[in-house]
Parts: sequence; C-alpha cells; structure tokens
Amino acid sequence: MRNAEPLHLRLLRLLRDNGAVSRAELADRLEIPRPRLLAEVSRLVSLGYVAEAGLAASRGGRRSTLVELNPSLRFAAVDLGASSVDVEVVNGRLEPVAAYAEPADIRTGPKVILQRVNELLHKAKADGAYERLDAVGVGVPGPVSFRDGVPVSPPIMPGWDRFPVRELLTREHGCPSVVDNDVNIMAIGERHGGVAHSVDDFLFVKVGTGIGCGIYLSGEVYRGVDGCAGDIGHIQVDAHGPMCTCGNIGCLEALFSGTALAKEAITAARSGTSPAMAERLTAKGALTALDVAEGAIEGDVACIRLIRDGGRRLGGVLAGLVSFANPSMIVIGGGLAQLGHILLAEIRSVVYRRSLPLATGNLPVVLSELGPRAGVTGAAVLASDVAFGEAT
Amino acid sequence: MRNAEPLHLRLLRLLRDNGAVSRAELADRLEIPRPRLLAEVSRLVSLGYVAEAGLAASRGGRRSTLVELNPSLRFAAVDLGASSVDVEVVNGRLEPVAAYAEPADIRTGPKVILQRVNELLHKAKADGAYERLDAVGVGVPGPVSFRDGVPVSPPIMPGWDRFPVRELLTREHGCPSVVDNDVNIMAIGERHGGVAHSVDDFLFVKVGTGIGCGIYLSGEVYRGVDGCAGDIGHIQVDAHGPMCTCGNIGCLEALFSGTALAKEAITAARSGTSPAMAERLTAKGALTALDVAEGAIEGDVACIRLIRDGGRRLGGVLAGLVSFANPSMIVIGGGLAQLGHILLAEIRSVVYRRSLPLATGNLPVVLSELGPRAGVTGAAVLASDVAFGEAT
Repeated sequence: MRNAEPLHLRLLRLLRDNGAVSRAELADRLEIPRPRLLAEVSRLVSLGYVAEAGLAASRGGRRSTLVELNPSLRFAAVDLGASSVDVEVVNGRLEPVAAYAEPADIRTGPKVILQRVNELLHKAKADGAYERLDAVGVGVPGPVSFRDGVPVSPPIMPGWDRFPVRELLTREHGCPSVVDNDVNIMAIGERHGGVAHSVDDFLFVKVGTGIGCGIYLSGEVYRGVDGCAGDIGHIQVDAHGPMCTCGNIGCLEALFSGTALAKEAITAARSGTSPAMAERLTAKGALTALDVAEGAIEGDVACIRLIRDGGRRLGGVLAGLVSFANPSMIVIGGGLAQLGHILLAEIRSVVYRRSLPLATGNLPVVLSELGPRAGVTGAAVLASDVAFGEAT
Repeated sequence: MRNAEPLHLRLLRLLRDNGAVSRAELADRLEIPRPRLLAEVSRLVSLGYVAEAGLAASRGGRRSTLVELNPSLRFAAVDLGASSVDVEVVNGRLEPVAAYAEPADIRTGPKVILQRVNELLHKAKADGAYERLDAVGVGVPGPVSFRDGVPVSPPIMPGWDRFPVRELLTREHGCPSVVDNDVNIMAIGERHGGVAHSVDDFLFVKVGTGIGCGIYLSGEVYRGVDGCAGDIGHIQVDAHGPMCTCGNIGCLEALFSGTALAKEAITAARSGTSPAMAERLTAKGALTALDVAEGAIEGDVACIRLIRDGGRRLGGVLAGLVSFANPSMIVIGGGLAQLGHILLAEIRSVVYRRSLPLATGNLPVVLSELGPRAGVTGAAVLASDVAFGEAT
C-alpha cells in the first residue's frame, strides 16, 4: 500500500521519522535507483522542504552527504477538547518548539475558540517559534467530514455544524490545513510515536467524558462513508439501562464514561458502600473519575468494583468489534486510561473469553503510551502529511 | 485506489464486465494514451487473454476494432456450504457454461468433498465445457487464511484445519486457485452483479444456519489480520440467553439462525401458540426456518413474532456495527433472507433508531439480489481476478 504512494511523500516522511539520512541510505530504503533519488532530493531542496546536513560517516569509498528536513519547517498542531485547547508548534521532525494548553469550553462556539487558537499561534510567532507555518492540523471532539474540513452534526459542539474550520485556518495562516476527529488524531499519534508504532490494523479506544474509537485498517485511518466511523459510545449494552444524553437507552457511554463514573462514585459515597469516596466527597464537595482511580489504588472495594463493572461493559463491546474487525491490537487511551490495570485486566478477560480464539490468539490489549499528548502528536503528523503532499 | 492497480488487471476486468469494447473506448476509459493501450492489447492477445472481435460502430473517421476476452477462457467457481456443493464453469464474462449442485456434508472432510469437486469439474470437461481451466475460485463455510489458501480452525468443518485446499486444486487443474470464506465470496458476488454493484463500503450479512458478515471497505474486501473479520454470529446479544454451540452464552447465532428458528417453531407448534406450525409439524414430522417464513406469509401471528424477535436482535448488532464502521449499505442474504420484508422492516427499525443519525441518513438496508447464486458468482469473480493478475 505505502509503496504506491508518491516518492516525495515517502521521502519526506522518512526524513521526518529518522532525522538526517545520507543520500545513499535514502536510495536503499526507498528502493529506487540513485540517479532518481538525487534528482528528487535536488527538487525538494529547491522547493525548500529539504536541506543539506553535512557528510555521513564513511561506508568505504566516497562519503555520502546527509540531508534532512529544512530546519525552518513548522507545523501547528491543535487538539480541541470538550473543555481544553492544546496548541503546539513543531519542527519538521515534529519536535515541539512552542506549546500552550489552557481550559476552554468548546460550547462557546467556533469563532471564540478558533480566535483563541489564532491568538496563541500569533503569540508563538511573536516569540520567535516560526516565521511562517507550513501546515495546520486540528482535532475536534465530534464527527468530521474529512474531505470538506468541517465538523458534521457534532453532538457536544453547538454552533460548529459545518463551520468552515479548515478554510478559516488556511486563510488566517496562509498554509494548508487539515481537520479530523479527536479520536482519529489520537490513533494517528499513537501509531506514529506510541505503542501502536508501525501496527497496521488496530483500534484506539478513547475512554473519557465520552467513548470513541479510532480505526486503523491496512495502515490507513478508516473514517467511514460519512466520517463518523468509530462512534462506539452509543452502542447499546443494556436494554434496561439508564437513558443516555442521546435519547436512547443503555448506551455504553451512559454506563461507563467519566460522567457516569463520577455519578456512581457519588452514589457509592452517599450510600456508605465506599469509605474512600465518602471521605473525598466531604473534603472536596464533588467527585470525578480520577477519585475513583485513586480510591481503587488505595484498595477501596467499591471503587475497584465500579472500574471492573465498566471494564466488563466496554470489554463486551470490544469483543464484538474484535469479532467483526479482527484487528492486531487494541489501545486504550483518554482520561479514564488512568484507571489502569484493573480496567485493562477486565477488558482483556471479557475480550479473550468472548471473541473467536483465532482473533484473540495474538491480540495485545494495552494502554496508550502518549496519554494526553496523543492528540497533538497526531495533529502534527496529519499537518506534516498534508504539507508534504503538496511538494509536487 | 483502483487506479493504482496494474493496467492489465484494469483492462481485463473492464472486458470481463463490459464484453467487447473498441480500442478507442478502452484508451478513453482507462485514461491512458492510445499507443500504450495498443501495445498492452497486443501483449494480452499474444498471451491468449484477449481476442479480436470485429469492427466497432463508426465514431466518425476510421472505425476502431473491437476486442474482447478470449472466448476460450474458463474459470471454475465452487461454493462449498455446510450441506451443499455448488460448482460452475464460467467463461471470461462469468457466464455459466456448466453448473452442478448437489447435497454434501462438509463434515465428511476435505478429501471426500474436494474429490467430488474434482469429479464434477472433470465431468464438465468431458461434456465439452472447457479444454483447460484458467483459474479456480472456492468459498468455504469457515475462517480462511486468504494468504495461505487454507481454512483456519473452522468450527463446523472437522478435518479441514489448515488443509491445503488451494494447493490441491492448483495441482489437480494446473492453474492458479484462490480460497476464501463463503460470506466474503457472497459479498464479492453481490458487488459484482447484485444490489451492491459499485458500492465501495457495505456490509453483506449472511443469515442462514449460522450468521456471518462480509465487509467491503474502500472498494476492497476487508478480511482482518487473521482472515476472520466478520465473525458476528458470536457477538453476545443476551447475557442471560441460551448456550451457543461455541460454549458461550447468548450469542446472536444461538438466538437467531436457521437452527434456532427451527427449534422455536417446534416449541410454538407444541405449545399451541402457532396453529400453522402445529399443522406443518403433524404433516411433515419436522420444521425448518422456511416453514416459519411460509407461516408468516399466511399471517400466522406466532411466526411473525418469531421473525420480528430475530430481526430485532440482528438489528441491535447491526446498529452497533453501523456506529463502528459507518458503511453506505447493508445487504441481507443467506437462507433466512427468505423471511423477507418482515425481517427487513424490523432490522431497519432498530438500526435507524439506534445508530448515529449522520450514519443512517442515507443507509439502505436491502435484500441480496443474487440469493443462492451470490456465492458462485463471487467465487467466479475471485477466480478471474487471480487469473488476470497473472497476465504479466
């Protein structure tokens, strides 16, 4: 699949992921004749994507010269959450040169949020992080038409439906932009620099305020026909369960998510089944999923049970998806990944018991390595891909 | 995606699907320069894949000559079911020139079954259906390693685990062979000549003795990492349901399948809730899912309820898969597709109610057009693809 991609894209990605490489090694690794490689490198140098980087160590004979991505390349990576904005400016190797994170309510709408993003980027420029941006990548917490660069009917983003996010950023910064769903960019990040490195078929399951799934199939993100593939939070897990915010009954998200867990922790505190939660509720006046995680670490039986119950329900849904998609890895990320090994153990137990043995014979179920940085990392990868794609 | 495929494959597929085409039109439709097309056609004529087919109707100027697939091309298409063998010999346009169908128990093992397949093919040869085969395509009712051409741990096929099906057929007939899961070949058939014609992302759901799903994503069959993607019959739908043959509790298949429906029909007959089933049971001494379908058509309330209950359960699973995969069509096939519109109506009702509105805004849920011929059709398509792939 990858080999069918244009040479310039493969070459620039190789420099992004490996740093300075000799021309000799580039020709070997891209499996193309030396003259063709030399011509392509010259072209990319003249376009400003690639720069000379001195002499390579000797391989015997004449020493080959190193090339690297132009050190002045800059990408902006933006991860918009339900209640946060993360903005990074990175160089060609996707190393941060400026980073900002602050609380922000996505419900204040696209104009307020994107104006703040632009302010942060202009501030980075004023601080010397870049002269000009080569591309902007953005993740948003809702379904996206990847082709059109707009959110589509995003449930928790009032005012954002079909708002021209990509167009606005492209005009503001004079460079290509790309917009994707937040779970997809987390999956892209995890594949680039995390636990799913070089894995072609995996599911990235984000468990946070809500639940969503990024899908990698045959080395590519699968977004579905309308861009909303992976919306697993509203799969029904209990026909007699509580009502979900979406209006249906017994959705996974209504039974296991940050919101659901906080609610159950309060019930456990008030009913006296959890001394740990009762103590915290008295001290702080409120509880979050993080309190449940801490309670479980301290050995509070009710907290452990809550996490196990949630893991069992999520595991049941994942078992079905494993039977359907037969992936080679499941990565658990998002805020509730902090629930850690108790959660993982329960998910594994259900998935391994319920799915076809052939599909689970070699199926790691693991925690995200990048944690809260998965999103910006993926946004940076997407931005670099769109910039590299234009090097024609 | 398709355009990245080799020219010879695209050209031969075009002739397979369109019949005789002029050289001028071929160059237009393949979007390549005339000289390159002429050279490729000459090459394929000399290899015996393509033949001259007279003059085209005038488009003004010199009349272009027609070419078509060599009329002596022959593919064998084999659809092995749990209790049946279907063998067809088709020409390059996939039109049957010989066809055999007979009962056979897959549990008698690969040697007996494949010997019978070979006998039928040799009989077709003796009857003049072909001089030599150009490829054989086979579907089997279980998971398959598509790469290795062998069944892998197939639950209802004792003795077939890793049996070298492809190798045996290749040696016997002196031509390339290809082996796939029966549901995948049905999906391929339906996309080639049925209701999913030219649809790139769809699910083909086979409801028969068991339940399985063929998955088309971005115009390609998705088989998963181990070749067992689409095994949806063992997704749990009722944690308090009956035990399944797989040893787990409340699998979809245990609650809705040919076997389950026949069992429930007998219960309905004996308990007196279904006069139609009682009458049939007395007359025949046994009941099948087909009896339930006929009972429903006659208006028997218990039969209608059984089909609706099954449709609701299947619909629940499909709603989850729609949220996950966001396909553009769902095709219902297999023996129980005979349950028809009552089944479809119930599935639609659940899917449209339970999945994300964005994913169901334009999501046809339809019956297979090819019915029992979907399997052999797909096997023939696969066989032709593997033969065309060798035209290098």
